[in-house]
Order: sequence, then C-alpha cells, then structure tokens
Amino acid sequence: MHPTNNGSHNSGTPHSAAIGLASVSASDEVIEVFYPSPQLNPAAKSVSILCQYLGLSKSENGWARITGPDRRLLANALAGAGETTWAELISSTDIDHTLLACVNHMDATPVSIPEVFLKLHLLSHRLVKPQTLVLDGMFALLKNLAWTSEGAIELDELPARQLAARQRGEVLDVHSVDKFPKMTTYVVPSGVRLADTARIRLGAYIGEGTTVMHEGFVNFNAGTLGTAMVEGRISAGVVVGEDSDLGGGSSTMGTLSGGGSIIISVGRNCLIGANAGIGFPLPDGCIIEAGLYVTGGTKVNVLAQDGSLNKTCKAHELASTTSLLYRRNSLSGAVEAIPITHSIDLNTELHSHN
Amino acid sequence: MHPTNNGSHNSGTPHSAAIGLASVSASDEVIEVFYPSPQLNPAAKSVSILCQYLGLSKSENGWARITGPDRRLLANALAGAGETTWAELISSTDIDHTLLACVNHMDATPVSIPEVFLKLHLLSHRLVKPQTLVLDGMFALLKNLAWTSEGAIELDELPARQLAARQRGEVLDVHSVDKFPKMTTYVVPSGVRLADTARIRLGAYIGEGTTVMHEGFVNFNAGTLGTAMVEGRISAGVVVGEDSDLGGGSSTMGTLSGGGSIIISVGRNCLIGANAGIGFPLPDGCIIEAGLYVTGGTKVNVLAQDGSLNKTCKAHELASTTSLLYRRNSLSGAVEAIPITHSIDLNTELHSHN
Amino acid sequence: MHPTNNGSHNSGTPHSAAIGLASVSASDEVIEVFYPSPQLNPAAKSVSILCQYLGLSKSENGWARITGPDRRLLANALAGAGETTWAELISSTDIDHTLLACVNHMDATPVSIPEVFLKLHLLSHRLVKPQTLVLDGMFALLKNLAWTSEGAIELDELPARQLAARQRGEVLDVHSVDKFPKMTTYVVPSGVRLADTARIRLGAYIGEGTTVMHEGFVNFNAGTLGTAMVEGRISAGVVVGEDSDLGGGSSTMGTLSGGGSIIISVGRNCLIGANAGIGFPLPDGCIIEAGLYVTGGTKVNVLAQDGSLNKTCKAHELASTTSLLYRRNSLSGAVEAIPITHSIDLNTELHSHN
Repeated sequence: MHPTNNGSHNSGTPHSAAIGLASVSASDEVIEVFYPSPQLNPAAKSVSILCQYLGLSKSENGWARITGPDRRLLANALAGAGETTWAELISSTDIDHTLLACVNHMDATPVSIPEVFLKLHLLSHRLVKPQTLVLDGMFALLKNLAWTSEGAIELDELPARQLAARQRGEVLDVHSVDKFPKMTTYVVPSGVRLADTARIRLGAYIGEGTTVMHEGFVNFNAGTLGTAMVEGRISAGVVVGEDSDLGGGSSTMGTLSGGGSIIISVGRNCLIGANAGIGFPLPDGCIIEAGLYVTGGTKVNVLAQDGSLNKTCKAHELASTTSLLYRRNSLSGAVEAIPITHSIDLNTELHSHN
Repeated sequence: MHPTNNGSHNSGTPHSAAIGLASVSASDEVIEVFYPSPQLNPAAKSVSILCQYLGLSKSENGWARITGPDRRLLANALAGAGETTWAELISSTDIDHTLLACVNHMDATPVSIPEVFLKLHLLSHRLVKPQTLVLDGMFALLKNLAWTSEGAIELDELPARQLAARQRGEVLDVHSVDKFPKMTTYVVPSGVRLADTARIRLGAYIGEGTTVMHEGFVNFNAGTLGTAMVEGRISAGVVVGEDSDLGGGSSTMGTLSGGGSIIISVGRNCLIGANAGIGFPLPDGCIIEAGLYVTGGTKVNVLAQDGSLNKTCKAHELASTTSLLYRRNSLSGAVEAIPITHSIDLNTELHSHN
Repeated sequence: MHPTNNGSHNSGTPHSAAIGLASVSASDEVIEVFYPSPQLNPAAKSVSILCQYLGLSKSENGWARITGPDRRLLANALAGAGETTWAELISSTDIDHTLLACVNHMDATPVSIPEVFLKLHLLSHRLVKPQTLVLDGMFALLKNLAWTSEGAIELDELPARQLAARQRGEVLDVHSVDKFPKMTTYVVPSGVRLADTARIRLGAYIGEGTTVMHEGFVNFNAGTLGTAMVEGRISAGVVVGEDSDLGGGSSTMGTLSGGGSIIISVGRNCLIGANAGIGFPLPDGCIIEAGLYVTGGTKVNVLAQDGSLNKTCKAHELASTTSLLYRRNSLSGAVEAIPITHSIDLNTELHSHN
C-alpha cells in the first residue's frame, strides 16, 4: 500500500498532492504517471485523507496505488472533502488501469518515479517556478523509456511490440527514447503556442503569453515567466524574464555541453538574436546581436554612448549591467557592448495574438 | 447559409474556390478546413454555381456550409459543369461531416477561418506564389488549436479528451499548439522531400525539386521557387530563388525576432553556409561563409579580385550586387565581400534525386 | 523467386542476411523492408539454406519474397539450422503480409530496395561501422515515400488516403516525405537516449552510451562510436569518437551544403561548442569554442602555451594536432588555437545515466 515512504520532513514547506493514472511495465512496475489535476498546498483535510490512505504522517512524502476495494472509499472521502475532480478521476477510471495517489514536499529529494513525475507536473502546470524545487537525483530514478503512439513502453519490451504492430499491418511509432516525456502529453498550460511539442519536456514552465516556435526548445526546470517569443533553446535551469525574445537557433548555455556551474538566465525585455548565444546571466534590456556568442569569459570592449572605450572586461562582470547591446564590430572583429537608447520594436500583431 | 459575406470587391482580380471538409468545435464553430482540390481561376460556370449557392455576387467573397438537402443539388450542378472532383467530394462524404464551399479573391482581406485556410492552401498547392496574396489580419482570425493524433481540438476541450484517451489505455498525442497547422496534413506538392514535416507550416510554398532536411524550416507565405536544398530556416515572407542552398541551421531574418521591416529574400544560385544568416536581401550567386551572420547594418569591406579594398559599406547597400562571397577574415576579424569567379559545386547525385 | 540477382561477387567479404516484412505499393512493388533480426556473417548452414531458396550461389547477392507454399518449408529448414528467430518470424506472420529473404555482401553495390534497407539496418543495429559499407547508388534506388501514421505510402496514393481518413473523421499524419525513414521505426539500439527520433535516419550508428538531444541530428552512414552527448548535427559520413560532445546547434560539414570532398570526423574526447562548427577532421581532445565555425580553409594563429604565436596555417593542416582549443580572440577577431592543459569537465550525473 505504501511502497515508498520518504521519511519525516519539515512540514513547514509547501505540500503537493495528486491522483494519477500510471503506466506499468510487464513486471507491473510503475514507469510513468499522468496527474490530470495536481495541487500545490491542497486543503488540510484533503492532505489528511491522502496521508491516512498512504499511511504517512503529515510531514512525510510517499505514494501508493489505489487498488480495487479502496477506490470507492477513497473517492467518497475525497468527494466529502470537496475534491470532486480527484474523486471523479478515481471513480471514472476502469479497475484494470493503475491509479495512484502521491503526496510530496517541494524541497524533499524525490525517491520514486511517482514523486519525480509529480514535481515535473507542478512545473508545467505553473504551480511552482523553475529552480524552486529539489530535483536532486531524479536522473537516476527515471527510467529510459520508449514514448510511442501506444504510450510509454519499456525498452526491452519494445522489439516484440514493434514486430507485433508490423504483423498487424500497423506501425508502432517511437517518438522519443528518453527519461523525460514531452510536456503536452500531460498538460498544455493556458495562453501559449507550441509549434513543435517534441521540443518541450515535461517539467518546462511555459509562461502565459509565450510562443515557442519550431526551432525553440525548453528543457525541464526551465522556461519563461511571461510573454515571450522563443525560437532558441532554453537549457535546463535557465529562466527567461517577461517580454524577452530568443531568436531562431539562439543558445543559452546549460550544463550539458561544457557549460560551467553558473546558472544562466535571461532578464526582462531582452533579445538574443538568431544563432546567437549567451554563457552568462543576461540582465534586463540587453540585446545580443544575431550570430554572436558571448560566453562568460568573452572579453568585451564596453563603449560609452559616444563610442569611446570605457573599459575592457569579461562578460560575466557585466551580469548586472542592464540595457547593453552586444555586437562584434564587423571591421575590427572586437566584441563590444554599447548602451541602448531606443527600445526594441517587436512585431506587435504577432505578439498581440500569442 | 452564408454566414460570411466579404462585401463587394474588384472582380478583376483572380478568383479562387474550393469545397472543403471542416473540423468543428463542440459549439459547432468551424475551426479548420481541408480543401483537397482548391482552384485558382475556376471556370466561370463553376464560380457562378458556387456564388449562386452562397448567395454572393461574382465580385464578393464568402463561404457557407453545404448542408443535408443541398448536397445532392450542388453536387449535381457541379458535375454538370465538369467539376467532377468537387462533385465526388460532396457526394462521397457522410452527412455527419461538415462540408463547405468557399470563394475568395486573392487580394481581398480574409474575414473568416475558411477564407484564411483557402489562401494558405493556394500557397502550398503552388497555385500562387508567396507575397502575392493579401493575408492581413489572419493572425487574429485563426484560432490557437491543439493539432493532435485525433485531429484539431479546441484547447478548452483538450484536457477532457486527453484524460478520456488515457482512461481507454491510449495516448492522445498533441503534435502542436498553434494557429497554423503543418502543411502535409493538407497537401504534399509534387517533387519534394520533406524530412521532418513538423517544420513546414500550411501556407509554405515548396518549389518542385526542393528538399527540406530535418533542420530546415519553412513558414507560411514563404518558400522556394524551384530546386533547392533547405537545411536552414525560411522565415515568414522570405522567398528563395532556384538552385540555392541554405546550409544547416542557417537563418533568414524575419519580422518575428527583432528583424526590421525590409523583406528578406535569397536570389538564385546562392549558398548560405551552415549556421550562417542574412538580414538583407541576398542577390543571385552570392555565398555566405559558414557561421557568418550578415545583417543589413553589418559594415563590409568590399574587395577587388586582387584582394585590395574597393570600399566599405553596409551590407544592405550590396543588395543588388551579385556573385559576392561574404566571409569574416579569420586573422583580422573584418567582414569582407569578394567577387566569386568559380561556380558552386553542389553534390550532383543528391540533387539529381530530389 | 529471385527478381534480383546481383551477380557473382568476391565471397571473401562478410555476408549479411535477414528475413524481412515489406511494405508494398498498390502495384505490389516492394517499397520498404523491416528486418527485425539482421545478421552479419550468419552461420554457413543458414546462408546455404537462404541461397538455395533464393537460387543464388554463395558469392551472389539477392532477395526474394517468401510466398505461401514456401513459408513452412523455409521456416522448418531455418529452424533446423538453429535460426529460431527467423523461423518464428516466418511462421508467425500472416500470409497476406509480404515476407522476403535477402542476402548481401558488405562491399557489393546495392541494386534493389531490399538490399539497401538491409545495409541501413546493419548500420543501425551496430553490426557494421559507418564508412565500411558500399552504399553507392542507393539514392537512385530508394523511393521517395510518405512515412505516415499508417505506414509507408507511395506519394501518388497519398491524396486519396488522406481524403479517405478525413472522411472517416480521422487524420492521416505524414511524418516525413523522404527516401530515408527514421531509425526507430526499425530498431532502437541498446544504451541510448534519443530525444526526438524524427532527427535520426535509418542507417545512423548510435554508439552505446550516446544521448542525442532534441537539437541533435544523425544522418545515415554516420554516428558515434561510444559514449557521446549529441546536441548538434552529424552529417552523412561523419563519425564521432568516444566521449565527445557536440553542443546545441553545432555543425559538422557534410557534402550536402557546399562542403568539400574531405570526410569530416570528430575524434575522442572532443567538445564542439554550441552553435559552433567544423569543416575539417577534428583530432582527439580538441575543443571548438561556442559560436565559432572553423572550416578547412580558415587561417588559424597557432599559439604556444605562453600565448606567443607559433605559426599561422589553415585549419586542415592541423588535422593531426590533438588537444587544441580553437577560439576567436574577442578583442582582435583572429581565430586562434592554443594547447589544452586541463581536461574537459562534463556533467557527471547526466552522463552516468545515459
């Protein structure tokens, strides 16, 4: 009933809880969970019902399957506490599908697949912002799965499933082989356009008013806080402020490919040009010229308004200087930063219909 | 019968017309239309039949559903006028599916979803070239929809549909959340290869002999006029001439991400290198070296054949100078343009089997 | 019985053989083949059985359908030779599906679609390494097909199939229009993560321990030999050594887009930064700074450890100099190569869970 019990935990941190539909492997192991209606800080009564069901104290994390005889009892108890969506989910799901309940603290290290999936859901439902959850160790917990037209499949079961599909005259399409599924299989938050959903992982936080174009990409625990046009890549951990624009193919350096330990971010009202990139936290109101990659160690000639040289420093030393335009002087080859005096003029019609 | 009537219009401009199969929302609103056989300048008799059915004068635009009792009458009239494909479409479609007819002038501002979809079809069927249609206001008309394995779905209906699929043991796959669907759900024009169709929007014009590789992208009202190898991004409004090649990850600046108001184009027999880009109209026979981004304002040292400096100017001033190679001098860091004296040697076998 | 007989051939080179399930066109032509269990150098007895069935000498290549009356006989013979997987495939496949057998020599020029598909399978099953097979002429042999949610469809049959799907209230999704399908429809090799399978063609060789992220791409006859993080593009023919890392949007120059005739490769323990690229074979232990494209002709200032200039040469002259860091001096604009004295520190947790 309670295969996972994450031990005692500071009960002062926010609780989250959800009822989910799980995929299981041939050996009946939970490999993935869909939580249609996760909650942050659910009502005390609801937490109490779930904790009692899971055999947990209020300060513990854990999950358990909701099995046959318990379904009606738990649904009734939740309905009585006003949790009609959860109750309805339980009572409307056939007994041969795997239901489970999970409760979790935001700052608890996850120790099971249902807990990791709940945390990733919280991010993509915009219930918590990137970089505010403890996700340590989740890579080791998650299974590398085939995400297919028939759902999540364990890799050692895949060849037989693919052959069987072909022998029926069908094709089992494998969209992805990964530890992380794509977000839209679980949730599409309000007010966004996502041109190619294959490029947005569950755990991405896509702000209201954000458009992610075909060349855009958003990793887990990363995203945009509000209106944004994303045609570049938002690496794991990177947060982009409101009214910013990542041009086509632009890059924010993560930790996957030689990036350092500094967390990269993009401020408000920034523009990273097409095929440009940053390896340092970009302050509000800055522009990176198309095609220019500025790493933290890039030496930059900082110019005054009149074009005279103020100083030369590394880019990461400019991480708190707002409203600079970074460009490579096309005659001297030097990277320069100059104060911006006019505002960025984005296409109004496009953004007004995000 | 005629919910949309776009008013009187100059009848001298080209007509287009089509019979379509529509998706409707739960509230029975048309949200998307598939026109299998759109026509530009259909026979006068055919236009007359459709206008009469729609209650329009010949100079008006409009659309209407083809409802139960009218289906046989309209099919017979169209068959009598030789429009056997349209007649067959009407008579072979079950009564519970939504059929509609639409007539439109190319230079009329669209005022309804069926009209916008007809215009986008005309482009992708190669009946009209990019930048020759009036598309003003279409962003506001189109609905942001989930394009899924079960077809187009309104976003407020999506969560229930996804839950229902999971409860059946299936997955409703959301490919895209966007105002524009992908082209190949509607038409695959002849003589093209499209390695990843998720990256080509309806309204793209893909010329005969064009290959769009996995990293290629083509927006609406944009495309290639003939043979081309596209591994880069063709932004909205950008037209690429014959025998040109956009290298992997290359960029053509549009209006979405800080681009200016000048329409970018690529001439014939051009090569934009991998990860390169342009922010000015590139004339015939030009090459941009891999990795170099030339915006309209980039100052360029224009060299003579012998390497001596002819002049220094901004790139947009070179928008009518053909056969230049743009490169960044790897020792001085200066952007240079030098006359090309040899021809581009593309891989013959690959291109001959486009 | 033996529509294709590739003539006599040097029998000393490795044999390959497989039993496959084929898709056929409306005119009953084989257009694509799925070989679940291809073999390199199968047992002599097995080859003998297949060659006898195909009417081939041991030094010949060829293929033939396995038709009704022959199925049981061939299955029994293969089972008797210990080929239980092949025997089971034949006996478990319904008679209305097209089965075929194919034998092939690695260095024989393919002359049929089943032979090309067998060679591409050998690569993706990691039975042979890239650049070790003769693939000449395969572009001309392969058909340009629509790869759809209903399997492979000939392009002239597509419009009717798409209309029929819409008239049933469904959508026939066209994933790709190409001569090459995606790899994962045929095989997912062990120990890999493939975030967006649309970007990996059949014929790619994905080494054990490789992660291909969403922005990664791997063409046929190309790939990684072991552990690698691929967020960039591996062009046809390019081989990447163990423990190397291709940053987001990075490029390896192929022959498709203006690349020359030199085969590009990436050594062991290399890092190509985000949005960077190479146009020359990169030796072991080298780093290309983010955003820098080094072509074979790029003039490079080669520096000593103390920063003094050793020499200036073209990058392709450095194709055997290991452990260099390539960067563009951000003040002078010159491309420089300096010896690397510290090791690359990749994210350990991420790579340990590939």
